[in-house]
Amino acid sequence: MASETYDLVVIGGGPAGYAAAIRAGQLGKKVACVEYERAGGTCLNWGCIPSKALLKAAEIVSHIREAKSFGIAVGEPEVDFAKVMGRSRNVADQMAKGIEFLFRKNKVEYFVGRARVTVPGIVEIVEGRDKGTFFKTDRTMIATGCKARRLPGLKVDGKHVMTSREALAMKVQPKSIAIIGAGAIGVEFAYFLNTLGTKTTLIEMLDRIVPVEDEEISEALHRAFKKQGIDVRPKTKVENIKVGKDSVKLDLVKGDKRENLEVETVLLSIGVEANTEGLLSPRVRLDMDRGYIKVNDRYESSIPGIFAAGDIIGPPWLAHVATYEAVQAVNGMFGVAKPKRVTTYPGCTYCNPQIASVGLTEVKAKENGIKYKVGRFPFSASGKAVAINQPNGFVKLILDAHHGELLGAHIIGENATELIGEYVLAEKAELTGEDIHSTIHAHPTMSEALMEAAASAYDEAIHI
Amino acid sequence: MASETYDLVVIGGGPAGYAAAIRAGQLGKKVACVEYERAGGTCLNWGCIPSKALLKAAEIVSHIREAKSFGIAVGEPEVDFAKVMGRSRNVADQMAKGIEFLFRKNKVEYFVGRARVTVPGIVEIVEGRDKGTFFKTDRTMIATGCKARRLPGLKVDGKHVMTSREALAMKVQPKSIAIIGAGAIGVEFAYFLNTLGTKTTLIEMLDRIVPVEDEEISEALHRAFKKQGIDVRPKTKVENIKVGKDSVKLDLVKGDKRENLEVETVLLSIGVEANTEGLLSPRVRLDMDRGYIKVNDRYESSIPGIFAAGDIIGPPWLAHVATYEAVQAVNGMFGVAKPKRVTTYPGCTYCNPQIASVGLTEVKAKENGIKYKVGRFPFSASGKAVAINQPNGFVKLILDAHHGELLGAHIIGENATELIGEYVLAEKAELTGEDIHSTIHAHPTMSEALMEAAASAYDEAIHI
Repeated sequence: MASETYDLVVIGGGPAGYAAAIRAGQLGKKVACVEYERAGGTCLNWGCIPSKALLKAAEIVSHIREAKSFGIAVGEPEVDFAKVMGRSRNVADQMAKGIEFLFRKNKVEYFVGRARVTVPGIVEIVEGRDKGTFFKTDRTMIATGCKARRLPGLKVDGKHVMTSREALAMKVQPKSIAIIGAGAIGVEFAYFLNTLGTKTTLIEMLDRIVPVEDEEISEALHRAFKKQGIDVRPKTKVENIKVGKDSVKLDLVKGDKRENLEVETVLLSIGVEANTEGLLSPRVRLDMDRGYIKVNDRYESSIPGIFAAGDIIGPPWLAHVATYEAVQAVNGMFGVAKPKRVTTYPGCTYCNPQIASVGLTEVKAKENGIKYKVGRFPFSASGKAVAINQPNGFVKLILDAHHGELLGAHIIGENATELIGEYVLAEKAELTGEDIHSTIHAHPTMSEALMEAAASAYDEAIHI
Repeated sequence: MASETYDLVVIGGGPAGYAAAIRAGQLGKKVACVEYERAGGTCLNWGCIPSKALLKAAEIVSHIREAKSFGIAVGEPEVDFAKVMGRSRNVADQMAKGIEFLFRKNKVEYFVGRARVTVPGIVEIVEGRDKGTFFKTDRTMIATGCKARRLPGLKVDGKHVMTSREALAMKVQPKSIAIIGAGAIGVEFAYFLNTLGTKTTLIEMLDRIVPVEDEEISEALHRAFKKQGIDVRPKTKVENIKVGKDSVKLDLVKGDKRENLEVETVLLSIGVEANTEGLLSPRVRLDMDRGYIKVNDRYESSIPGIFAAGDIIGPPWLAHVATYEAVQAVNGMFGVAKPKRVTTYPGCTYCNPQIASVGLTEVKAKENGIKYKVGRFPFSASGKAVAINQPNGFVKLILDAHHGELLGAHIIGENATELIGEYVLAEKAELTGEDIHSTIHAHPTMSEALMEAAASAYDEAIHI
């Protein structure tokens, strides 16, 4: 197939890449997808999916521990850490096979190796299993995503120093860990490891953990984590990291206070950076913005015919946003539909309590000078939440003060990551608080809180 | 307060009654609520809420049993049945106190006893704690709800023969049970008791269990229940029920086959009937329809000033519908807003797997001669479902063939009862499959299946 011309060559097999390839396949296009490692990319193999398997295991441990309060006697759970991790790897493997199946089903030609755009219209595999493969293509989609950021001078050895990637392949549970960075990945690992018995210190340079979330959400998670026994350290910098034979020593610096910490392992969860190394030959010069590929409203880069979608075009670095962008880009490049850029999307954090949000935080609404009103509902007033012993957390809504459009929504508590879907649809469809309030929600469910939070903005909530 | 005139007297303190009273209180009205038993009514004391506490206990037992597959070793759970039931009663008690608190907060005067409408504008308490209390009122709201139907000639003794009410107060777990009627209540008890080790026979006269749901949902639940070890008997009538000293004997009749069954206990879950006994003096003659109070679009009965809402005005006998109706009625009677009648509402069944639906089943769409298309997505193709070991079940959508409006949605599987909320909002707001498909859903969540089911109707689902 050396000199065949493809309709589309996709570089990267993650949530943007595989979705682009499958969508092009659905449209009957001749499409190849080149993935360096395994179909599914980071999300499926080293991110979203395997981490959810781990978090579920931690949740089961929590459930077993609280069984007594339901009248169920059971011994203390014994966690076989290697098995927990092994199941997570199996889940990732199963899902990766699923993507490979979808490739065959949609006639996507799948290649393994590191691809390079040699000149516009030519892609070569320069490393890996299918090295030497050469594609002529009318369209190229770059979807190589991001990788975990590292600290300069600190070697990631997979034992004492890890990123999320190595952490998802741990064989032995660390006795203690310092997690540097309290965004979604940091707090998910903090919940998981702490629940399984690792002494966990969670360190965040900014004012509060999960700093992109609404302030009240950060406060609530901070309280919950402290109660769970996690040592939560906001406003704290890490200095002098020294990796020894059996442990890592580091300094925690908060204002003018300095404290020593010694842990078995350090996890770096300090953000991501673009995977562009070796991607473009020197002849291919794309406009970039802080390391990310700049694209127009059709997801096309500064060179016609070279498209990009997903993490490689910059924040918010979310799998579901990546998939959406990729499908839009493909619809656009083949003239199926006018591609849309992303406006409304949810963000989810799967620690316990779960966090989910969409749209503006209250602080952002204020900064933007928007007149808003707030609706709230605590799960302690929800019959379902009390019945299932999950009365912690709340729903907070930001509504436009004049017309009541949903501007932002923030949920912390059981099932938050599933509940947010309704609000995302509402915000996307430009519905109002009144639309949500006047929709009958099933009783008894946690989702009633979504309705009552909307009602509360008009002082019409029945249950508070 | 014998001869004061009230703005509103509400008879019944369940989801319709307490909501009506609280809403009137919010509006600053002088309102009384008369409840025969306890604030919260059947739903909160003997229905939705305590049953969810029981079902959660069963779920925890299931979780413990499947812990091993996650790499967590733990002994077989020992269920203290009395404690499980006791917790359920405590939850009901706590929620009832919550309603009493809301009454005080909203200045609702709360009375306990059996109320009777003596003449229009006069309500008396004729039995119970506050017997003899006499209300002059401009408006009366009847919200006395329903009670479980019984079989003629079969005495409910709370030991060998129960309705859901007695079943929620069981002290001892029956070794075997025949559940007559496989609607929501029947299947919820079947799941709960079978999981805890009761030999369970589930009997349904109609063609299939959960007969109001989509046919495919009934089939899926039937399969799941059989796998759980429940003896599922559709198309089966019960005859010759004979209550002995230690057991109940009955005949199961299917077509021309007759089979004997001997069980410790029979649970009747064969529907409900209106609570109207003693409610109206002979001078107050309301138009009725098959035992239910007929109301107009303002929830007003055939006698001006007498309103009714909730189960007492007939199907669908759902708490959330009752609350909605009551609030609408109160808004209308005090001129706050034009009351709306119920059009779109979810139905939920909290067995495992859970079931949730809204709008038309496929059969109904066919019967109505509607041109529709079907969207589907199996949870086995959902990364989140696989990661949390809940790959069973599916989403099925009925969309209008021309414009794509959502006409019906059916979900069976983990979390179905929370997931349905998004579809209810979509149907209520007259959104289309395309609106749902083009809304970014968080990855990885079960709610992605809602989007993919919509996409599949247009052959654009990525993951199947």
